[in-house]
Amino acid sequence: MIQPEKMPEMPNDLQIARQAKLRPLGEIARGMGIREEFLEPYGDSVAKVKLGAVEELSDRPRAKYVVVSAITPTPLGEGKTTTTVGLGQAFSHIGKRATVAIRQPAMGPTFGIKGGAAGGGYSQVVPMELLNLHLTGDNHAVTAAHNLLAAMLDNHIHQNDDFFHVDRHSVTWRRVLDVNDRVLRNIIVGLGPQTDGIIRETGFDITAASEVMAILALSTSLRDLRERLGRIVVASDTGGNPITAEDLKAAGAMAVILREAIKPNLMQTFENTPVLVHAGPFGNIAHGNSSVMADLIGIHAGDFLVTEAGFGADMGAERFFNIKCRASGLRPDAAVLVATVRALKAHSGRHRIKAGAPLPPELLAENPDDVHAGAANLLKQIENVRLHGVSPVVAINAFPTDHASEHAAIRSIAEKAGARVALCEHFTRGGAGAVELAEAVAEAAAEPTSFRFLYPEEATLREKIEAVATKVYGASGVEYDFGAARQLDAYERQGFGRLPVCIAKTHLSISSDPNLLGAPMGWTLPVREVRASVGAGFIYPICGEMRTMPGLSRHPAAERIDIDERGEIVGLS
Amino acid sequence: MIQPEKMPEMPNDLQIARQAKLRPLGEIARGMGIREEFLEPYGDSVAKVKLGAVEELSDRPRAKYVVVSAITPTPLGEGKTTTTVGLGQAFSHIGKRATVAIRQPAMGPTFGIKGGAAGGGYSQVVPMELLNLHLTGDNHAVTAAHNLLAAMLDNHIHQNDDFFHVDRHSVTWRRVLDVNDRVLRNIIVGLGPQTDGIIRETGFDITAASEVMAILALSTSLRDLRERLGRIVVASDTGGNPITAEDLKAAGAMAVILREAIKPNLMQTFENTPVLVHAGPFGNIAHGNSSVMADLIGIHAGDFLVTEAGFGADMGAERFFNIKCRASGLRPDAAVLVATVRALKAHSGRHRIKAGAPLPPELLAENPDDVHAGAANLLKQIENVRLHGVSPVVAINAFPTDHASEHAAIRSIAEKAGARVALCEHFTRGGAGAVELAEAVAEAAAEPTSFRFLYPEEATLREKIEAVATKVYGASGVEYDFGAARQLDAYERQGFGRLPVCIAKTHLSISSDPNLLGAPMGWTLPVREVRASVGAGFIYPICGEMRTMPGLSRHPAAERIDIDERGEIVGLS
Repeated sequence: MIQPEKMPEMPNDLQIARQAKLRPLGEIARGMGIREEFLEPYGDSVAKVKLGAVEELSDRPRAKYVVVSAITPTPLGEGKTTTTVGLGQAFSHIGKRATVAIRQPAMGPTFGIKGGAAGGGYSQVVPMELLNLHLTGDNHAVTAAHNLLAAMLDNHIHQNDDFFHVDRHSVTWRRVLDVNDRVLRNIIVGLGPQTDGIIRETGFDITAASEVMAILALSTSLRDLRERLGRIVVASDTGGNPITAEDLKAAGAMAVILREAIKPNLMQTFENTPVLVHAGPFGNIAHGNSSVMADLIGIHAGDFLVTEAGFGADMGAERFFNIKCRASGLRPDAAVLVATVRALKAHSGRHRIKAGAPLPPELLAENPDDVHAGAANLLKQIENVRLHGVSPVVAINAFPTDHASEHAAIRSIAEKAGARVALCEHFTRGGAGAVELAEAVAEAAAEPTSFRFLYPEEATLREKIEAVATKVYGASGVEYDFGAARQLDAYERQGFGRLPVCIAKTHLSISSDPNLLGAPMGWTLPVREVRASVGAGFIYPICGEMRTMPGLSRHPAAERIDIDERGEIVGLS
Repeated sequence: MIQPEKMPEMPNDLQIARQAKLRPLGEIARGMGIREEFLEPYGDSVAKVKLGAVEELSDRPRAKYVVVSAITPTPLGEGKTTTTVGLGQAFSHIGKRATVAIRQPAMGPTFGIKGGAAGGGYSQVVPMELLNLHLTGDNHAVTAAHNLLAAMLDNHIHQNDDFFHVDRHSVTWRRVLDVNDRVLRNIIVGLGPQTDGIIRETGFDITAASEVMAILALSTSLRDLRERLGRIVVASDTGGNPITAEDLKAAGAMAVILREAIKPNLMQTFENTPVLVHAGPFGNIAHGNSSVMADLIGIHAGDFLVTEAGFGADMGAERFFNIKCRASGLRPDAAVLVATVRALKAHSGRHRIKAGAPLPPELLAENPDDVHAGAANLLKQIENVRLHGVSPVVAINAFPTDHASEHAAIRSIAEKAGARVALCEHFTRGGAGAVELAEAVAEAAAEPTSFRFLYPEEATLREKIEAVATKVYGASGVEYDFGAARQLDAYERQGFGRLPVCIAKTHLSISSDPNLLGAPMGWTLPVREVRASVGAGFIYPICGEMRTMPGLSRHPAAERIDIDERGEIVGLS
């Protein structure tokens, strides 16, 4: 989705997607060892996979498990999904069978400024318009389950007759919608007559930011989903004790609403590689990874399972290792780090890239020195992968505006750090363009693994935060605001101290300051506030302002999206 | 859904639904003359029907078109959906092929006080849990399209840079969610810093109340849907001119969001009669009928097409005749009026029935006199059908607590009025229990039709309102509040005077006062306010308080709904 404007000779993503020759999903599934009876078709080109497939596949050999992460991206993104899809496709070019696992994109932003999130060029998931719109409705189910809990909570306060009393100022459970709608960020509800409920200040987040989405992504079974839903903490009672969805008797109905959503969705790439699309949790206040359920299926469905983790390796990959792998019990065999010439040049601090604006011409000029000047970020992210005992492979995602000397610069930086490296042209050439990457990943994954978590479960929450901050982010230390410290103490007291941490910070820097490029040192991580997603199973310290409901731009993408005379979609890409 | 508590020997609806032997949908479709390539399966037991089926079927003979309506119901409902399904099933017992068309239930109320809306007993649509939950996500698509328009409108006000300026006090477009959530009825949005948009008072309605839902139900093609969306009026500019979704450039993206939702959903009854489930517009502020698209398919898919219109014949059937048939161009051949002993007894004014409370024992005692005392309502609804030139058939929906003398009383009332009448036991006996009804309907439909609209398109809005009020409701006249009169003048001036009217009033009385039973005379219809659904294509005068967002009761149904150890749903019925 990131390079089309630079290749006028190439058709756009939607046009390419329409050229795809889709294979019947039953055939795709058979290639994964999944019999057709485990599929529930949703139209011709998407199917849900029944959870029984996990058991069905369990005797088959375990695939090598590869996570695709990246250096710290520019605001434009560096083509992580595209590389994930391209790598998956490339394996078939070297005689291996791969499954790709990605997140389901949020629909709201499709109508905002960004395009879709299906990969791009000849490395995309098809049909991209289904992926970017409702797909099989899982995001809608998350919205419905989340908002039922909100309604039951406010109804409990309104009816005011039960054996526990909600402290209405303690309510942390907001509402969600999959739309970019800035005016819903801060609202007052319950105006009007007494029958219209109690007045409270609250707001809406985008559905991807819902804890229910994180739960969907981390559950290992329908039963596990049901139990996690029950553990969601929404408020405190007037005695300061946490009130859960179980207390409100909402978790059962929420599980019923999510009964179909927990089944991963099977699609395919442009080259017919199987893709499991499932769950799309936020990458800052949540862990930003696709679902455990999809990986539990994909891990026995071929030679390789390629899964993607949101943002840079300090964010998505760190949570992949310490949150997702903890939940799933799966262990990675290799990690890909997507790097681009433009992002490394940006990390030199010599250029400014702004979303929505054209790239500055001086950034496009041949300049391997700028690439070298931005090396620190790539080196730190290589280290971040190795901290977890995993072999990194650097994928140079080539752009047509790049120069060979610049690619050589990235190669030399990575090789000096002892990492494997591969030049990739999957955007323009599909899987054939990522064969070097597939070979490097296969080599890395063949090495004996020594995967390790960054911190033990038994460590205190402060120890966990400090481990991530100092080891992964390169901070000198952590500073807690008064409220944050008190909240950490409260969570330890309430027994949530064994949970892993998911540090909410900017994705535009390894540090918590989006303006600090490269690999900043000598800074302190400021923890302003700490919240808990007890159902999902993590504590999230908040470092900086986290926007959980996007807005629309002056002229949002929606203005250009329409159907044509034949009912085909136009303007979506 | 209405009688289970009175038949302890009968399994409940969910248990019966699970006994159903579903036939493959491809086979169901073939029986309708629809080839399998026109189906898009969504799981094993629901499929969307591609719109190409309309053209494909157009050479086939036209089915008889039967609308199922009712006398004015008690708050418990009188089994209209159950009778619709039962009648559809009964046709196969007399050697005829029928298709059933019903609305998609809202999901929110499933978790409130009411049970599902799939029919009941041995006359239900299966699997009922799919129908009552997401089905294929059409309601979610309506929510998303509606709220995108709301976000684009508020964003337009926020960005404040275009060639038209929204009068923010004139905004009529609210937001929607498919949840019972009283605190969302009246809210203030846009609090917080300037980037969080403009402060306005607004609110949420339930998705079924969205004009987008009414549009989905009335569109005759994807193109027609696109154009209707463009005509939605959301506010006025500062010069008083209407601002449409087209002006905001939102209608194209909304149509893209609804591109799958416009395809009707194919399911089946307990006895494998084909059922088209599609769209669920509100029955007071909207027309309360299932979709035109479904009927355009069903009308060539068998010998009979049985469709249901919400609430009593003064409400749903009147709109079926004057709004839906105007949009579709289809003409009905017969109308069924569902009547129950308990509702006629209630219309005597001698008993009070309250939702959620057990029926008073004296209402259950044998008493044909009470039935006769409530006859006026049935007689007026028979007349309301005849006003449109259609033959009425009274269906006595039998309950186990009824007495033969009471059934005889209904029969004698109907026959004296010259209407056909049939005793129905489809709840306990399936289609076999409604054979008498099927035969009576077949006879009525075989008569030459003389269908006519109640008023011509060219009549003024006041003439249209007065026609419905005096002829259908039996009012002596209509009184307009000052604002309502001014609004009517404005709509006439703006060129909306040719639209039909959809009078929003209580469904618990033929009058606008829910406490007036029977067939009240000598009263005046008070029009407090008039609004327009220009995209859907009707003007709706509001007579009384219309609740467009339900609340949850003290202990909502959601508290009892859960999944069991095997992942099966419990508590939903």
